[in-house]
Amino acid sequence: MNEPRFPTSLGMSTTSTITLLGEDLARDLMGKVSLTELVHRMVTLRVPSPGQVRMLDACLLALADHGFTPTAIAARLTYLSAPDSVQGAMAAGLLGGGSRFLGVTEDCGQFLATTVTELPEQPTDDLGWDDTARTVVRRERTERRIIPGLGHPVHKELDPRTPALINIAHEEGCYGPHLALFEAIGRVHEEVLGRRLVLNGAGAVGAALADLGLPPQLLRGFALFARAAGLLGQLAEELRMPVGMDTYLMVERNAVFVDPATLTEDDDG
Amino acid sequence: MNEPRFPTSLGMSTTSTITLLGEDLARDLMGKVSLTELVHRMVTLRVPSPGQVRMLDACLLALADHGFTPTAIAARLTYLSAPDSVQGAMAAGLLGGGSRFLGVTEDCGQFLATTVTELPEQPTDDLGWDDTARTVVRRERTERRIIPGLGHPVHKELDPRTPALINIAHEEGCYGPHLALFEAIGRVHEEVLGRRLVLNGAGAVGAALADLGLPPQLLRGFALFARAAGLLGQLAEELRMPVGMDTYLMVERNAVFVDPATLTEDDDG
Amino acid sequence: MNEPRFPTSLGMSTTSTITLLGEDLARDLMGKVSLTELVHRMVTLRVPSPGQVRMLDACLLALADHGFTPTAIAARLTYLSAPDSVQGAMAAGLLGGGSRFLGVTEDCGQFLATTVTELPEQPTDDLGWDDTARTVVRRERTERRIIPGLGHPVHKELDPRTPALINIAHEEGCYGPHLALFEAIGRVHEEVLGRRLVLNGAGAVGAALADLGLPPQLLRGFALFARAAGLLGQLAEELRMPVGMDTYLMVERNAVFVDPATLTEDDDG
Amino acid sequence: MNEPRFPTSLGMSTTSTITLLGEDLARDLMGKVSLTELVHRMVTLRVPSPGQVRMLDACLLALADHGFTPTAIAARLTYLSAPDSVQGAMAAGLLGGGSRFLGVTEDCGQFLATTVTELPEQPTDDLGWDDTARTVVRRERTERRIIPGLGHPVHKELDPRTPALINIAHEEGCYGPHLALFEAIGRVHEEVLGRRLVLNGAGAVGAALADLGLPPQLLRGFALFARAAGLLGQLAEELRMPVGMDTYLMVERNAVFVDPATLTEDDDG
Repeated sequence: MNEPRFPTSLGMSTTSTITLLGEDLARDLMGKVSLTELVHRMVTLRVPSPGQVRMLDACLLALADHGFTPTAIAARLTYLSAPDSVQGAMAAGLLGGGSRFLGVTEDCGQFLATTVTELPEQPTDDLGWDDTARTVVRRERTERRIIPGLGHPVHKELDPRTPALINIAHEEGCYGPHLALFEAIGRVHEEVLGRRLVLNGAGAVGAALADLGLPPQLLRGFALFARAAGLLGQLAEELRMPVGMDTYLMVERNAVFVDPATLTEDDDG
Repeated sequence: MNEPRFPTSLGMSTTSTITLLGEDLARDLMGKVSLTELVHRMVTLRVPSPGQVRMLDACLLALADHGFTPTAIAARLTYLSAPDSVQGAMAAGLLGGGSRFLGVTEDCGQFLATTVTELPEQPTDDLGWDDTARTVVRRERTERRIIPGLGHPVHKELDPRTPALINIAHEEGCYGPHLALFEAIGRVHEEVLGRRLVLNGAGAVGAALADLGLPPQLLRGFALFARAAGLLGQLAEELRMPVGMDTYLMVERNAVFVDPATLTEDDDG
Repeated sequence: MNEPRFPTSLGMSTTSTITLLGEDLARDLMGKVSLTELVHRMVTLRVPSPGQVRMLDACLLALADHGFTPTAIAARLTYLSAPDSVQGAMAAGLLGGGSRFLGVTEDCGQFLATTVTELPEQPTDDLGWDDTARTVVRRERTERRIIPGLGHPVHKELDPRTPALINIAHEEGCYGPHLALFEAIGRVHEEVLGRRLVLNGAGAVGAALADLGLPPQLLRGFALFARAAGLLGQLAEELRMPVGMDTYLMVERNAVFVDPATLTEDDDG
Repeated sequence: MNEPRFPTSLGMSTTSTITLLGEDLARDLMGKVSLTELVHRMVTLRVPSPGQVRMLDACLLALADHGFTPTAIAARLTYLSAPDSVQGAMAAGLLGGGSRFLGVTEDCGQFLATTVTELPEQPTDDLGWDDTARTVVRRERTERRIIPGLGHPVHKELDPRTPALINIAHEEGCYGPHLALFEAIGRVHEEVLGRRLVLNGAGAVGAALADLGLPPQLLRGFALFARAAGLLGQLAEELRMPVGMDTYLMVERNAVFVDPATLTEDDDG
């Protein structure tokens, strides 16, 4: 076996230089580029416009923290158990970033990206997008699949993040086919499905990230990056006003024993 | 047991509102605040100045990515094994953020913070800080403890991140006692230790984060947040130019069996 | 909201007792039950026969360690970076237990379980199972789906774990419809697919675990439990004969910079 | 750089063989060796006696599951959020295995091992161990350090796991200096500290594992392996009788907003 070579365009260092993306880290990036811009560049290898950075920051803010979610609670409980390992608490919090609570962004972005890619040609106005959306919604309904990004358990009237993202996208020239299709789905789904559902913020973020040209396979990664910020805030609050111990005691003290025999009898019945 | 209440100043939502830190997320934060500013606010509950945000971004950039580190390789190998779980790959990468490769920032920040807190009064000029630094370096040497932030395995002459951070701190009014003590240690350690060591960038970040007023217990958390951005970039590159499989094969194909019996005999000898 | 109650049949304790599954832990379980038997009981709520425990141990051994896998390497690299956090290294190793390297057991067990459940009645002899297997293999081929458990990148002639598991299953009365269908697929697939593939060990474990009555959704969990043992062995070896640093250096020293501009030009072309 | 070689005594495979520890996996290990025995062998490279395996199993059972601990709850919440990633839920549960809730075993084993190693010669009877224990307890008290393994928040009279482990150790010839010192500490600490504390089970496990010759740096790893079994049981129960959603809702619905301004005012005062 020949010695392999490991290609990279990211961080490199010599005794006298530290570069990232081929740029001098200390001279050309630090003090000039925000972490949000950096992550955009590392993922796309392109320099985003200030408007694209603002758009991406808005997306990340929409995802950073939703209060006492299962992932935030898991991170706090892990911090309670292992306060010496902040990395374990943050990792535990990220590990809940799966299909159910953090997957909508990725699912919606991928769904829109696949649909847009397969279009023979993109519509040029809202009516055109409405036609496309009708076809898509009907097809998904026939296949009994749910459309990601539609509906929210709490914000049944309006998810305020959705119009905010759309406005910023227009302001910054970041409004593209994914947001256009997402909005069209918002307009036409009721006539197909028979009920009105909200366009949720997690889905809108997926659409906006896809319009920013970020790779559909990694949209969840942006949600996780945003969540890393939120989890750091959660851990800081756990230091300030802890709830981990109360959460644990509340479950532990209300535990009720269920005899295993009563559970397996049912199986046999 | 009375029903516990769970206090929080972070994310809350009702059917019609989503707030974070008591602010309307969609109206007051999205589009106006970067993720870096948000994490500062969530951790400190204070609104940072634009200069403080620039300083924090510079610190985060210094930590975001160092190329093929053990943590970046671990994340890529995990992505190779479980491509369906981006959260697992990012979590695996963060889990290497412990004492050896990512702990310098925290160790240095805490060391400086403890020292500064214990000073009866802070020096007012460089000569004063030099006196303090001499006392500290001598004490640590007597106790045979290493001073975090001194020395770097590669950048033996200069870690270019250190002067860059100090410059930005001066520009933005973020230069405080922690950076002052850190610089003084850089000036005086040679006369005590007998050899000249570089002030490394990870340590300088710890000093700068402490001067920003961030809690010493969570400095590693900021390194992890920065690393989350870097890991996302690493995973994007793994999609573009994979090295995980070659890394694995290179180890696996060069495995050499060592008979366990030859190892335990020695123990008995 | 009424105070919730949290039902459990597992661990409970009072000031004077510690119980698990309703049994006195110290008196009735410790010294009498192996960890393998315990995990079987905790998952199924039934007391397995000694033969079932032997069968489960054989399955777990088949999965415990495969040498320098990506997951083992990721665990060792994480241990190198954060030696203070053994839990982080083990967690990082488990996080590679996803679809590609550890998912075959679960996929195969679930595939067989679904097929067996949907049979109007189970065949009573090998010829009957062969008919069933032919139908299944033809259907999967038509649907262009791969059959989990067929084929192995290294053991192209025979995966020795497969006959070993089948023998133990016969010896212990643990041979059921899932192994029967798996063996039948092994006999008939060549006439449908036109080439002979090995029945791999990971798939055989999935079949055997399903025959043990373990829940199909958690078969991957048994692979992870077995892998926890293997990872502990890997970390012990990393203490004894470390390879983490060499792995890291081998990648880091063979890094080759690829100018990002050369990669994005192609995209635009 | 010469191509590195990666030494290992663990898993290896060729096209026709799979070995582990130099043994033929399918022929010599599967069906003959339990997972508990395997982990002992992988860590120590020695073949344990049946009595040592029974002792190790008893230790593992003592640690496997303690009901609704913070780590079990974190695993269940993670499973709720990301049911597609069992590995994430198990990893999240293990990540709480740090200093506070799972570290006693390691701390106690290491404390005893260090003490025993430093003895000029080992006592030969209980009176001798009592003298040693008095010296140790006095020293720790003078240094204001707590002695790991002493005291339990719930089992204030007796932790029933401790005598159970000691009995099995005597039965199996596994009683050595670490358990002897631990018992002596249990006898003499009251005369030094002025109050009677229980010898807790986690500490007894640490002593027993050290007497089994397992490496002190990895004792936490055995606790984690045992906990992997317990977590699998917890996840199986979460499928059967879920509590994750109720835990989350109980915290989320009892969230109380605390204005950040009221918290930072204090700081400034």
